[in-house]
This record gives sequence, C-alpha cells and structure tokens, in this order.
Amino acid sequence: MGENEQIPDATGLSRRGLIGLAVGAGAAGLAIGAGSGVAGGVALGRARERQVQDAAVSGDGIHQSGITTPVQDHLHFAAYDMMARTTRDDLASLLQDWTYAATRMMQGLEVSATGAVGGSPEAPPDDTGEALGLPASNLTITFGFGPSLFDDRFGLADQRPPGLERLPAFLGDDLDPERSDGDLCIQACADDPQVAVHAIRNLSRIAFGRARIRWSQLGFGRTSKTTSDQATPRNLFGFKDGTANILADDTAALDEHVWVSASEGPAWLAGGSYLVARRIAMLIETWDRTRLAEQDRVVGRDKAQGAPLSGGDEFTAPDFAATDAAGKARIDERSHVRLAHPDFNGGIRILRRGYNFVDGNTDLGRLNAGLFFLSFQRSPDRYITVQRALATDAMGEYLKHVGSGLWAVPPAPAPGRSIGAGVLGD
Amino acid sequence: MGENEQIPDATGLSRRGLIGLAVGAGAAGLAIGAGSGVAGGVALGRARERQVQDAAVSGDGIHQSGITTPVQDHLHFAAYDMMARTTRDDLASLLQDWTYAATRMMQGLEVSATGAVGGSPEAPPDDTGEALGLPASNLTITFGFGPSLFDDRFGLADQRPPGLERLPAFLGDDLDPERSDGDLCIQACADDPQVAVHAIRNLSRIAFGRARIRWSQLGFGRTSKTTSDQATPRNLFGFKDGTANILADDTAALDEHVWVSASEGPAWLAGGSYLVARRIAMLIETWDRTRLAEQDRVVGRDKAQGAPLSGGDEFTAPDFAATDAAGKARIDERSHVRLAHPDFNGGIRILRRGYNFVDGNTDLGRLNAGLFFLSFQRSPDRYITVQRALATDAMGEYLKHVGSGLWAVPPAPAPGRSIGAGVLGD
Repeated sequence: MGENEQIPDATGLSRRGLIGLAVGAGAAGLAIGAGSGVAGGVALGRARERQVQDAAVSGDGIHQSGITTPVQDHLHFAAYDMMARTTRDDLASLLQDWTYAATRMMQGLEVSATGAVGGSPEAPPDDTGEALGLPASNLTITFGFGPSLFDDRFGLADQRPPGLERLPAFLGDDLDPERSDGDLCIQACADDPQVAVHAIRNLSRIAFGRARIRWSQLGFGRTSKTTSDQATPRNLFGFKDGTANILADDTAALDEHVWVSASEGPAWLAGGSYLVARRIAMLIETWDRTRLAEQDRVVGRDKAQGAPLSGGDEFTAPDFAATDAAGKARIDERSHVRLAHPDFNGGIRILRRGYNFVDGNTDLGRLNAGLFFLSFQRSPDRYITVQRALATDAMGEYLKHVGSGLWAVPPAPAPGRSIGAGVLGD
Repeated sequence: MGENEQIPDATGLSRRGLIGLAVGAGAAGLAIGAGSGVAGGVALGRARERQVQDAAVSGDGIHQSGITTPVQDHLHFAAYDMMARTTRDDLASLLQDWTYAATRMMQGLEVSATGAVGGSPEAPPDDTGEALGLPASNLTITFGFGPSLFDDRFGLADQRPPGLERLPAFLGDDLDPERSDGDLCIQACADDPQVAVHAIRNLSRIAFGRARIRWSQLGFGRTSKTTSDQATPRNLFGFKDGTANILADDTAALDEHVWVSASEGPAWLAGGSYLVARRIAMLIETWDRTRLAEQDRVVGRDKAQGAPLSGGDEFTAPDFAATDAAGKARIDERSHVRLAHPDFNGGIRILRRGYNFVDGNTDLGRLNAGLFFLSFQRSPDRYITVQRALATDAMGEYLKHVGSGLWAVPPAPAPGRSIGAGVLGD
C-alpha cells in the first residue's frame, strides 16, 4: 500500500479508512476516496443534541474512558482479528482511524466530518445513520490489545507486556474458540443500545481490509456499581452484584489494583490496565429450582437485601468467623463471597464492569442467558489468582464459562496521538 | 391430572403453576405445592417503587395492552408450543396462571403474592428476582394464539378465526422453522430490558409441564411511533421508520385497520387483532456500501430528514405524481414508501411495533442484525396484501425474511377472567 494511505485527509480518516466507509471490496477500484472526503457537510441531530456530561466520559487524559466511567446501561463488545497479510502500517493506520472516529462518536458526532449523510449523494455516507438524532448517551469506547497481536506479524514481540498470554484453563471452562480471544477488542458502553451498536458497527466498517470482527456480545442491566450513588444492580440469578466493587473516586484503590504503574511492564502500558472478558452461561432453570436458603448459601449473602449472611446490611463487611448456634460458619466456606474476597486472595481486588445477556433460547427452550463478565486489573496474575480461588465455588454448579479473552488496555493517547501509538513506537 | 389443579390457591396460581415455579421435573413428586403457597410474605423493591403511569399500560379493559400503548424502548418476544400430551385443561390453567402473573408484573409486582423472595427459605422463590428494585418500566405483556393451537389437540377447531393459517410464502422468504410459528406467543415490552426479560423468564417458568419456548427474540430502539409526541426512531438502515404509523389516539383508524369487529370471525376475538412477527435480516454491509442517492431512492424518502422525495418535511404526504425536470417520478415506482402506501393497497394501513435487533455477528464477521417486524391488523389478509405488494420493493435486495409468525390476539379479559377464556368457552 502507498505511503499516503497513512495520512488522514480533511475528514481525519486515512484513505484506507475512507474506502472502508465508502465502498465494498468489489468496488474498491472506484475513485471514492477523495470524493467522499468533502469537509464540512451537513451537521444534524446528534451534534446538536449532545449532552454536556459527555465531556466527562471522553477520558481524563491519562486513562481511557470506559474503565472508571460510571457504568452505562448497555454494552456492545467486539473482538477483532487483523486480516491476513496486513502489516504494521495497516495496524498503525487502523488505530489512527479508530482513535479519530471514536473521539468524534464519544462527543455525539457522526463518524467523520462529512456529517450526517456524507459529503455527496453519489457516495455512501460515512456514517451509517442509526444514531442520528440520539444524544451521545454517555458513550465510551475502550480499546485493548490481545496477546496474539504481539506475535511475529507486526514486529511487536519485544513490546509484549509480561503475562499477556492466553488465560490458563480454569476448572469448569467449556470455552468456544469462536467466542474467545482476538487481536484487538473494543468495549462500547452507552445508556442507549442503539448508540453502542452504532459505534461498533462504524468502527468495524472503518477497519475494512485491515481487521474484522471475530466475535461480539451485547449486554444490558449493568451488573456493577462504580459510584457510591449508583444502586447495586442485580444479575440474572436475582442477586445484587458488585456491592464491593472498587468505586471510581477511590483513587488509592485504583492505583493499587487497576492501573499499571510506570515501573511495571513496557513503558507504553503505564497508566493502562488489563481487561478480562468471560462469557459466563448461567444454568438459569437449575438455579430457579434451587431453594432460597441454598441460593443464599451459595452466594453468601441474602437475596432480598444483599447483606452478608453474618448479618448487617448490604454494605456491612462480611464476618467470615461468625457462627450460628450450632457452631457452623454463617458464611459457607464455599460461598462465592468468601472465595472471591480479598481476605482470602492476598488482598487482591478487581474492578468489575460486567453485563447481563440474554441471547434468545437454546434448542431445549431454555434461555441462553448469563453474565458477560468484564474486569480491569493491574496484572493478568491478579485475575488468575481470584479465578483459581473460585475453583471450589459452590456457584460453579450453576455456571459455565463459554468465552474468554485477555487484552492489554493502553492509557489514553496524548493529544493528537492515536491509541496505542506508544506500542508502535510512533 | 386432578380437578383441583385448576383451582388457584392463595397465591393466585394453579398448583401446576406453583410446581413450575418451585421445582424441576425431577423433583415434581415433592410436596411443594402447598408449602410454597404461603400468602403474604415479603413485599420489597418493585412494589414500593412502582410508577403511577403503570396504570395506563394495564389495558383499557377492551383491548390488551401493548398494542396501542406508547412503544417502549425494549422488547422480549417469545413463541411457545404446548407440550406433548397436554389437554384443554392444561391450556386453560396455563392461561389462567399467565393472566394472573402478567397482571401482577405489569403493576411492578413480583410474579406471585409471596413477594420478592418467596414464602419460605426451604422453597425456591416464586419470583426469579432480577427485577427487584426496578420500576415497572411501563411493562406490557400481550398474548396471542397461533394457527396450530386450533388443530385437533384442544378441541378448538371450530373456534379458529377465518384466515388464521400460516402465512403464505412471500418472495424473498428464507424462513427458519426454528424462528417461526408457535402455538402461543407473548410480546413483553418495557423501557428496561431487564424487566422485559424478567417477564418472559417468569412466564416461561410458570408454563412448566404445559408449554415451552419455541423461539424468542430481544429487540431495542423501537422502530415505531405510536403517539404524536414520540420522535420517529431510526432503523438499522439509518432511516426514520414509522413516520406514517397509526397513532394511538386515532380511534377511527384503529377501528378501521386494527381491531376485529364483533361482526367478523368468532365472538371471542371481537376487540382483538392479528399479530404478525417477521425476523428480517438486513444485509447491513451491502447497504452501507450503497450510494446515498440510491439509499434515498430505495426508501423513497431522504435519509437526513425522512421527507418524501417529492418534497416537504417528514410529515408531508408523498406526492407520487411529482416528476423531476426530466419527467421522471421523484418517488421511484419500486420505492418502499410507494409500494407500502395505502394508496396502492386499497387503503390498508397496519399498526407497526417493530424493534431493531443485533444478535452478535456471523461467521464472516458481519453483524447479525436487522428489524424484528411486529404489526397488528384487523385481518391476516391485510398484512398479506401489503407484503405481496412489496414483492418488487427495491429494498428487497437488502433484506431477507428469516422468521415468521401469525397469531390471533384476543381482547382484554373481563375482570376476574383469564386471557382467552372466551376461546375455551369458559
């Protein structure tokens, strides 16, 4: 490919990105690149209606947005693979285009400067249009780099962060390769699902000829709590989930548990994090037939209020030493709350950001449903430690991990730079 | 099965329904029926937080809710088949239980009177719990009866409404039987997807031993407009959809186009309607590579504003006779707006209530996305006429109908009676 394909035109997208927006492989020979790059154009809908609070979600200049941003109601998550015979230059231009488009969309703007319906009726519009007229809905777009990106294809082997490898097998795994891994990932969260879907769709278009979706997942009903004024939501087991999550304003805990420090790993990842995604199928029907007392025992909290079984209210610290009249531990040794607790995992905490999902039903008429688990942590080891501790989790009987992925999440790009410019040495 | 299984206990559910809530098939021999039927119990969350406007969505006493109710943001639709060797009594008790539970859930209450976490820790809670603490979110639950319900299994052949047969094949159909048809259907719409999912999940549990899900579909981003103050939403082609829909306060149009009159069909269906569901896959990537002028031509409206190509604004009536300087029709003869227009279909209008869907992606990395079309009309013929008129629709090139179903939607039950009591002669 030519040198000039790296250079953004008036719309801010590389020629390759514009071709992705404009034309399919079959018609790529048409002279569309320049034609669709008309600056200015129509500015409708979303731009006018964008909300003031969106400024708050475009990242703090250090960390990417979508990590400590108050959790939005909806998720579209996509994993991508670089296409065969792509080069380091292709990766660089893709990250440049994605950064440009994501920055615009997070502000409630269309994907390129040609606006709502493109620069010319004789070209396909840059923006697919389904979010026109919708507010930005607190959209955040967060990018991650998978272990496979650091193989020998792009000359990045020496930039691989320590521990960025496929997660080890865990007890109870039943992983589907078609729902696992990926060279790159994008987490799009928004309060309107149409806005999250619009983001993934348009970023996928832009990736034309360079990367394509490997798998994707929609989610709703955030199962995390990231600010003290958010109510704790419930997962599809009907229990409150995320009571003890790290809060966005607890900078000390974030520094200790979530952000990669300058002294760890490669320089390009300082201020970044590691993202784990797990598609966890819930055996809903089995759970629903379980006695309430057993559900409470498995979780270690009471279903109605979410209080630990040792007593108190939702936010009372669990007392794992508390016993009942018969001398039995009030919080079962195999309960989820105990096994996942920092007290039993060397103090490790993770920042959770998962979503519920229902993807229709199975052939047996059961709901195909569960938790799309997302967590951010300072090292892959930390997740592995906690997940290994859950090997004897009583909840394991009602769960099946069917998808898995690990990505390094770079810090926010410097002004005018692209996401991950550091890893490419740019 | 025993006579007394028809009789609701203190919770309002039949013993069969309670067993469905309480125990799986394997444990059905346990004496749970009476035990879990403890009246009173805990009343938490949803009951306290239910919203005043919910009264508005529990039906008007004549028609079921969820037809002219202002369209909510989220959908969970499920089709059910009666299980093998079930009887007319099973069907009657199922409809009785569904009516009871649906009435409660539409008020923001848990599925039975035992409240949030059931009557006893030694039984599974009646309610699955994931909607505890959430407002009722304008939930509506709408029931329909498919053609197959009127075969020889339940003695209903003489109650079959005229025209309630599987829809004929249409040009462009590529139907998957596993996404089509069903003895019964339930449309759950709510402003919170977790509330819609909770409704379908709990109604499916209650159906235990009597009916099970055949297929189901989630949707978001309503593509209809049912009140004059709702903005017209956009479908995944990026166009406004539903501009010319029948509005909820246009009672004359509803009487003419949507409600079955007392003089048509069986008496039990007077005040009801016919519901068509079509899963329409959109060839998103192909569409996105189409020139804006061609997209506009296919739809017959402009993408930015939704105005007909004959001029004016979104709500200007299309002028199909208008020509350009070259004498060519401004609105193409094969455009969607023209072919679907009442002027070319004997004045027929249908009440649309469809949703966008994205169900992850295909093996090729394309979004598995489209429109879950839902419409209510006074007779199946009316839908068939319009759909046949669309045989030459220019949009057909970008669509594939992959699922289909038709159901008769009975009127609202009389106070104290069950949905469809009329069809069973009760």
